[in-house]
Amino acid sequence: MGIDIGATSLDIALADVTGLILQRRSEPTDVHLRPETVLGRCSELLLELTQAQAIHPPQILGIGVGVPGPVDFARGVLVAPPLMPEWENFPIRDFFKKTFVSAFVVVDNDVNIMALGEQRAGDGIGVDHFIFVKIGTGIGAGIVSNGKIHRGSDGSAGDIGHICVDKNGPLCACGNRGCLEAMAAGPAIASRAMEAARNGSSPNLSQMRKSKGGAIRPEEVNAAGREGDQAALDIIRDSGQMIGDVLASLVNFFNPSHIFIGGGIANFGNHLLVAIRKAVLNRSLPLATTHLSIKFSRMGLNSGVVGAISLALEYLFAIEDNPHMLV
Amino acid sequence: MGIDIGATSLDIALADVTGLILQRRSEPTDVHLRPETVLGRCSELLLELTQAQAIHPPQILGIGVGVPGPVDFARGVLVAPPLMPEWENFPIRDFFKKTFVSAFVVVDNDVNIMALGEQRAGDGIGVDHFIFVKIGTGIGAGIVSNGKIHRGSDGSAGDIGHICVDKNGPLCACGNRGCLEAMAAGPAIASRAMEAARNGSSPNLSQMRKSKGGAIRPEEVNAAGREGDQAALDIIRDSGQMIGDVLASLVNFFNPSHIFIGGGIANFGNHLLVAIRKAVLNRSLPLATTHLSIKFSRMGLNSGVVGAISLALEYLFAIEDNPHMLV
Repeated sequence: MGIDIGATSLDIALADVTGLILQRRSEPTDVHLRPETVLGRCSELLLELTQAQAIHPPQILGIGVGVPGPVDFARGVLVAPPLMPEWENFPIRDFFKKTFVSAFVVVDNDVNIMALGEQRAGDGIGVDHFIFVKIGTGIGAGIVSNGKIHRGSDGSAGDIGHICVDKNGPLCACGNRGCLEAMAAGPAIASRAMEAARNGSSPNLSQMRKSKGGAIRPEEVNAAGREGDQAALDIIRDSGQMIGDVLASLVNFFNPSHIFIGGGIANFGNHLLVAIRKAVLNRSLPLATTHLSIKFSRMGLNSGVVGAISLALEYLFAIEDNPHMLV
Repeated sequence: MGIDIGATSLDIALADVTGLILQRRSEPTDVHLRPETVLGRCSELLLELTQAQAIHPPQILGIGVGVPGPVDFARGVLVAPPLMPEWENFPIRDFFKKTFVSAFVVVDNDVNIMALGEQRAGDGIGVDHFIFVKIGTGIGAGIVSNGKIHRGSDGSAGDIGHICVDKNGPLCACGNRGCLEAMAAGPAIASRAMEAARNGSSPNLSQMRKSKGGAIRPEEVNAAGREGDQAALDIIRDSGQMIGDVLASLVNFFNPSHIFIGGGIANFGNHLLVAIRKAVLNRSLPLATTHLSIKFSRMGLNSGVVGAISLALEYLFAIEDNPHMLV
């Protein structure tokens, strides 16, 4: 089974041992809630899926779980997750083992599983070196080097949301100033749009703010941009440029052949993508960009849950060959 | 055999099949010269080493070559090398095969072979994820992910010298402004020291400039720093901070457990290292820095030539198992 827990949504699927998805469910969630609450709901949904397929819980062999924070992959727990402090060190594996007693449970960062999904079933098939960038409430990356997920020494690789864009920029939740996430992710886009609505530079956004009861979400900025609102377009382009500037450095360092962009902001479409591409091409070395493809992931919501299933399967078959891995 | 061609020096060693170095030679060079000239000199030195060991050239089984520029690893040629345009696409393998007819020749970027040397014989033994940073005339990195050299999609991975530090900074040889290399490498340090000598802010450097016939090299800035010259120390610290700021981003992205620093500037000692460490700790996420070690490589000049030998041996044994690799 695959579970993809995002900051605001759950995505769960039941698959057979070939990875074919038999049934799936998605619903909103909030990771600020306690882990027992969110994971308990995941368990309920998993049980519903097994019942619908007439499968008994002990028949579930593997569960791959993606969570939105840094994961100590060996131990299967979150370490210092900024969005969800109560989840730190919570034994996610044991929690699911209570209900699914035969299952091998693997826990990974949500962007890593999206990268894995892209590699197994998306445009990342057969690609040795790529970066999957998720842009939503936060900004993170999943990295594939020599065909393998690169998790880094503490499992925190890909944490690009806290790369510094402007030393004098706004304070970020992490305590530093001017982090990419604080300046270019969903909340920053919404907050700049609120400013434009308040100071009258965009009548369109002012109107939206009134009709939405005083708040503007990134989706509204996107809608305003599609209607040609200049302030909204400027906000989207600025965000793309900041993300592109950071990616330009990473392209020089990592030399990927592909960058796939996913997450909620991927819906922002061409204006965002063009701004990202332009910044990367402006600042990376020609050798690293000649064959570089930067595009939106075509898997949409699927990459996470498909990746979670792939992760579960990978370990399932690895254990068959190496029974000592069953600790 | 191992050949490490740096921008200004050659390092050549003859080793047995266990990697034990039997004899070695180093001498100055200049890669602005034509490839035939520099590689011809390498061949001469190799022949001298074989003669000294009473070995016939056809007995040489493998040659690993490190060159200071981006290498298309599969083809064994330099691609768009900024320092040495005449070397582009020069058939380095064929050149050595003329004299050493039985040798399998492998060509790689010089920082990659330094990283390989550190992994095989230095503090990188058994380390899964590390970055080797060479700071000298240029700045480059060799990357190890999951225990393997990460060369990237076009072989240009690790080209961190052209990451942007200041959009309004000085023009770099690559055509962009404010590249790390243009602001923090050897020539930038020398040029800032010349400025300090001219404007009188450092009597020490002014004195050096006079005694050296009008020019100051990075070594002199280092010497002035060791004598406590404030202007020299400021220049060294600024350079360390800029390098550290870039490494902070890469630590967030890559989460290495070790960063090894080598190259000519590594002689600058603690003031440089402290500035680098401080910048990284200031700007990287706690999870990524808790176990992070940043130190000078203890291999000195050895890492390159040892890595070149390791590279040759690696392919030699790989071919024995997979004869089809011999193209």
